[in-house]
Amino acid sequence: MSEFELIRDFFADIGPVRADVALGVGDDCALLTVPPAHELAVSLDALVAGIHFFPDCDPAAIGHKSLAVGLSDLAAMGAEPAWSTLALTLPAADRDWIGSFSAGFAALSARYGIRLIGGDTTRGPLSVTVQVHGLVPVGAAVRRNGARPGDLICVSGTLGDAGLALCGLLAGIEVEPALRQRLEYPTPRVELGLALRGLATAMIDLSDGLAGDLGHILTASGVGAELDLARLPLSLPVAEVIEQTDDWSLPLSSGDDYELCFCVPPGRFDAVQSLAAELSCPVRAVGRIRAEPGLICRLPDGGILTINGAGYDHFAVQP
Amino acid sequence: MSEFELIRDFFADIGPVRADVALGVGDDCALLTVPPAHELAVSLDALVAGIHFFPDCDPAAIGHKSLAVGLSDLAAMGAEPAWSTLALTLPAADRDWIGSFSAGFAALSARYGIRLIGGDTTRGPLSVTVQVHGLVPVGAAVRRNGARPGDLICVSGTLGDAGLALCGLLAGIEVEPALRQRLEYPTPRVELGLALRGLATAMIDLSDGLAGDLGHILTASGVGAELDLARLPLSLPVAEVIEQTDDWSLPLSSGDDYELCFCVPPGRFDAVQSLAAELSCPVRAVGRIRAEPGLICRLPDGGILTINGAGYDHFAVQP
Repeated sequence: MSEFELIRDFFADIGPVRADVALGVGDDCALLTVPPAHELAVSLDALVAGIHFFPDCDPAAIGHKSLAVGLSDLAAMGAEPAWSTLALTLPAADRDWIGSFSAGFAALSARYGIRLIGGDTTRGPLSVTVQVHGLVPVGAAVRRNGARPGDLICVSGTLGDAGLALCGLLAGIEVEPALRQRLEYPTPRVELGLALRGLATAMIDLSDGLAGDLGHILTASGVGAELDLARLPLSLPVAEVIEQTDDWSLPLSSGDDYELCFCVPPGRFDAVQSLAAELSCPVRAVGRIRAEPGLICRLPDGGILTINGAGYDHFAVQP
Repeated sequence: MSEFELIRDFFADIGPVRADVALGVGDDCALLTVPPAHELAVSLDALVAGIHFFPDCDPAAIGHKSLAVGLSDLAAMGAEPAWSTLALTLPAADRDWIGSFSAGFAALSARYGIRLIGGDTTRGPLSVTVQVHGLVPVGAAVRRNGARPGDLICVSGTLGDAGLALCGLLAGIEVEPALRQRLEYPTPRVELGLALRGLATAMIDLSDGLAGDLGHILTASGVGAELDLARLPLSLPVAEVIEQTDDWSLPLSSGDDYELCFCVPPGRFDAVQSLAAELSCPVRAVGRIRAEPGLICRLPDGGILTINGAGYDHFAVQP
């Protein structure tokens, strides 16, 4: 199978046809139209075998996740997904593997109406790089730098599930399917991110753990925060680990949750809760922004947890 | 050095500040403004160590080339370079290597006024993926599908130099600096591509060899072509190889030239030559589009060359 056959067979028609794609896969560049009074939001992420996923991971899951991590970034800006590009590097042109990968990528593309408009396929160590492109009305994007003292800090979903699944897989322990799903098929919170435009003062997606990612909001906004760990939304398995070990690193510094962390003035919290209920997306307030710099994590017994490190760092942590 | 330090130290400020970048490196997404009545042109390319460059290649050259290949795609559409994103995967956070890489990337960015607006750094086998973003007035982009019978087929520069340099390096022969420069520091023909808007009927950049890349124009346009090999623009070293071996594969099917191949009606050829002279960019007519499908390569002695294969294919060719 040549590079051109591969593109024609698997990647020429992923996601819906869109009127804003003047030219898609198959020329030197794709040509795109951004509607008037909108900004283009873009994010590029690379997933590398052995670092971000196990080399023998289900290729459909790799296809899903490689797009999901970008959609999560769009969600965190409040941008509407539009187009993707894909650079796929493979040791060999394995038809079954590529078919499964593209099916996982295509299913998530269809779910969010995002069109694959171009990319590159090449031989080499397995890795997947995806750029997502979204649209947002001028001035409506939610950045990291708008948090103000007194804002509530909220998170969606539950924290630490993907990290626990990864620990289990690394230890060779059987991981229950629901937990493994959270690692391999994360759900980007696109609808919630869109709904939070005009409500959230700052937002980020949780890819590297709450402590580190919230830290980026604090740094960008020039503020500090206090987290009430008793209020963290935890699944039963994660809660049990913490109960048994007194170790909070799963929700605070394990990666791959792809939930949203955002700040809202307290007066808007009811509106946020209504929206979250409409979207069937659980949202919980877990702390408060302070004027004083630094991150304080209050333990359920009233003690203070000292944070070592700031989440997952691709060069600092050996998996 | 952490991922965040690395970005801050080397990648936060590459290329000029641009008014159309509402938000650059450092949030979940970059935010960009496309001017009214313009389309966005994008292209994504991955360069992998051991496939696209030697692992011990000068990192500044890798930085240059990883951006140059994308700029060449923009040139081939007649799009004006605007922004880049970069996914850099490295075995280790080697400060010297990264500094040299970013210097090469930054020098070419400055040359074309292109701003690095985001990306990703991760650990893994060495590879570089770059997306370029350009701007083109609506309807002005030059695609592959507009070639018409009778059009002259033109190419810029000289063909086969990068391929010859690669052969020399693979064989362990000393390669003269000018030739090696053509492989490691290709010059994207951005100004020529822009000048050809409104003149060229079809255009592509030569990344995989003239036969294969012209083949894409022929397929997309539903036409055929005849090339006059005696007219191919060749450097002295490449001409000598052909003289000695009667083998035309260097100009026809070796990769990495990053020259432009384009079609123009004969009546516009004088205008093209004037522009090329103004830009000090040599352009030569090397053949003609025919209505009959297929590619005929006429040898200097009047014979016909049969083409085997269609240029460099990342899955079909073992380097």
